[in-house]
Amino acid sequence: MELIFLGTGAGVPSKERNVSAIALSLLQEQNSIWLFDCGEATQHQILHTSLKPRKINKIFITHMHGDHIYGLPGFLSSRSFQGGDTPLTIYGPKGLKQYVETSLALSETHLAYAISFVEVTDQMVIEAGQFQVFVQLLEHGIPCFGYRVVEKDKPGELLVNKLKDRGIEPGPIYQEIKENDHVTIPHIGTIYRKDVLGEPNRGKIISLIGDTRFSKDHIRLAQNADILIHEATFGKDKQNLAHRYFHSTTLEAAQLASESNCKHLILTHISSRYQQEANEQLLQEAREIFPNTELANDFSRFTIT
Amino acid sequence: MELIFLGTGAGVPSKERNVSAIALSLLQEQNSIWLFDCGEATQHQILHTSLKPRKINKIFITHMHGDHIYGLPGFLSSRSFQGGDTPLTIYGPKGLKQYVETSLALSETHLAYAISFVEVTDQMVIEAGQFQVFVQLLEHGIPCFGYRVVEKDKPGELLVNKLKDRGIEPGPIYQEIKENDHVTIPHIGTIYRKDVLGEPNRGKIISLIGDTRFSKDHIRLAQNADILIHEATFGKDKQNLAHRYFHSTTLEAAQLASESNCKHLILTHISSRYQQEANEQLLQEAREIFPNTELANDFSRFTIT
Repeated sequence: MELIFLGTGAGVPSKERNVSAIALSLLQEQNSIWLFDCGEATQHQILHTSLKPRKINKIFITHMHGDHIYGLPGFLSSRSFQGGDTPLTIYGPKGLKQYVETSLALSETHLAYAISFVEVTDQMVIEAGQFQVFVQLLEHGIPCFGYRVVEKDKPGELLVNKLKDRGIEPGPIYQEIKENDHVTIPHIGTIYRKDVLGEPNRGKIISLIGDTRFSKDHIRLAQNADILIHEATFGKDKQNLAHRYFHSTTLEAAQLASESNCKHLILTHISSRYQQEANEQLLQEAREIFPNTELANDFSRFTIT
Repeated sequence: MELIFLGTGAGVPSKERNVSAIALSLLQEQNSIWLFDCGEATQHQILHTSLKPRKINKIFITHMHGDHIYGLPGFLSSRSFQGGDTPLTIYGPKGLKQYVETSLALSETHLAYAISFVEVTDQMVIEAGQFQVFVQLLEHGIPCFGYRVVEKDKPGELLVNKLKDRGIEPGPIYQEIKENDHVTIPHIGTIYRKDVLGEPNRGKIISLIGDTRFSKDHIRLAQNADILIHEATFGKDKQNLAHRYFHSTTLEAAQLASESNCKHLILTHISSRYQQEANEQLLQEAREIFPNTELANDFSRFTIT
């Protein structure tokens, strides 16, 4: 699993930061990529990465503000133009389907693949192969949703010593034992998988909390996350401004990471009022509360191990 | 007058060329800038120029394909966010108003200025101060319009010798004579402006012919233009492809410039199949027919004198 930040700015693009988009590469896990938000020129940002638009098969939109959706029609068109022909599902708030369908219809764009729309609601759970995505309504003035991506636990490793003790030597039978609830072996008997597997490997948890006021309600989304991605539109001295515009500060993001027992925090959605020189200051503000913090820039990559 | 090419590619953005947009700076003439087409990330391109979005007061859209309009909602939003509060008029085909209004409404974008929409039709004439814009339907499969921008002739210079012959010495009276049909001066008599002005200065003509098959009908749009901007999606060996997809070749653009007695030709809307190395070849193809040709790149600027 790898996160690739395609746009880390707020509201309007700047020379340093494009508007919102984050790719979650699941190429190793399920040969696909998910996209979270798709601000204008997301497809342009993708041109500067190794990401293949046709591999993106799910797009999650947090809310309907332009800096989070205006790149969708262009991305969808180019995905088709560049040979993408596999279905794509778009999850997001009410109105998203109308926005995309109107844009495509009026521009006479005919895609080579089918789009499914899923209108998300508070507390929805989306099943997606070995992942579950939990949806929670945030506080942003208009409906805005956070997403908690939970990888299912993976079975532990075969305990080879235990198998050898039962007289089973390495071979294709090991794979068979791993893949079935139980296997009966002549002269040895029935082997139950649960008896010969180690501890399951806990699946990873990634929480994306975008465009919201700080709220302790969001601990549910962030609890024990391996990575919490949280918006930090403002520095710590702008808490009133953050509250007024339904946004968060560096400090509030760190507070949520800390109270939610997260492993890592990544700050994004940085206001264009902050130039590059301010990055270190913003980062340090969060690290005072939650040391394991990073600040995302456009094209930042984080591998989740 | 100055032309600034913001996007010179066709269909999809590439690392070298963004999708269509051309700015016509009339800052000296009327303190405004006009934009022709607004593909996705036009506002991003503008960030790399000295153009001020709030100075753009007219946008002309040639047709509804996504690579010509998907940058509109973002541009309009950011123009407002960045303090633009003066009215803006958008000219374009049927459907454009619905596209823009739907995008802005669903994204809950509230602009600080008013937008007027003018639905263009074949042979329409738009009056705009000292300019007239003639509209003509092209051949592109869907309604696509070319624009011929004609600056009105400017009055000639005062013929100082003639005035002196009449006994009128230089002073504020010269300005008065220039600004009025006639002026009566004690002891000298009535001076008619027409008698003391030199030849009028012919206004400039800029023709923009985008996304179309070649047609001699377009001579009407291009006739005697100081600058003809013509699409050249394909090289000369791809005439069949150009015809099939309702586009033009380098050679066809040059042919129109030649037959229309234009002064300069600028090629744009270059297919992403052509890398930078092909530019010289494409340019030479056109120059064989019409030597006074340039090939636009993103951020190319042409001053019209």
